[in-house]
Amino acid sequence: MKIYFAGSIRGGRDDFAVYFAIIEQLKDYGEVLTEHVGDVELQAIGESGSDKEIHDRDLAWLKTADCLVAEVTNPSLGVGYEIAQASGWEKPILCLFRPTDGRTLSAMIAGSSAVIVREYQSTSDLKTILAEFCAGIAF
Amino acid sequence: MKIYFAGSIRGGRDDFAVYFAIIEQLKDYGEVLTEHVGDVELQAIGESGSDKEIHDRDLAWLKTADCLVAEVTNPSLGVGYEIAQASGWEKPILCLFRPTDGRTLSAMIAGSSAVIVREYQSTSDLKTILAEFCAGIAF
Repeated sequence: MKIYFAGSIRGGRDDFAVYFAIIEQLKDYGEVLTEHVGDVELQAIGESGSDKEIHDRDLAWLKTADCLVAEVTNPSLGVGYEIAQASGWEKPILCLFRPTDGRTLSAMIAGSSAVIVREYQSTSDLKTILAEFCAGIAF
Repeated sequence: MKIYFAGSIRGGRDDFAVYFAIIEQLKDYGEVLTEHVGDVELQAIGESGSDKEIHDRDLAWLKTADCLVAEVTNPSLGVGYEIAQASGWEKPILCLFRPTDGRTLSAMIAGSSAVIVREYQSTSDLKTILAEFCAGIAF
């Protein structure tokens, strides 16, 4: 199975360690196409390469993926963009949200019938959530 | 002309006064479907109504709009989602970005060939940018 993992890069890297932990768990289910999203070396300035190169590469990866798993606690334009694209391509979509003080998930994500939203508190809660989601995917 | 204006709500309301100023300028060119985005009363907790109601209403508005104007300085999942949807529907899209320390626009937005990105410093810079964008739209 090919898994596209989405997390904030230029929107802020506060959660990179969470992304890393999710990616490590996702590797039990298949190939994670976007492993760099959890890289401690990747800063908010983003990757090398032109914006168009990054956009076109990421969209091509997303198109070939069997599913999208997105961490949506940190607001991110790119993650929202990828969720809508995957929704248009009818990919299974799992959004992981960690409720914190004063933060509510976007209605455009929480209110989309194409998206499964699961709340969690720590990455140890994710084992069951990821197992259930991945078991439901035909590929 | 029907204009869909997108700005951060649950991603953070730091820029609501900027959104208000942009909406006021956009009214010179047509009907702004999403005037509430610039409302001082609208907090990050969001609007009343279920997430699904908000999602479906906003997407229906976006579908009928002649163009999308998005303020993208504050990262927002919903704004990214709307940009991708409008891109799929081949709507003209203008993204307004105010460069600030340590903040870079998402490569998924800056690298999309469907999006016109314009940087600005203050809302007084927007008059020319909005006039040029709106003049180029056939509706």
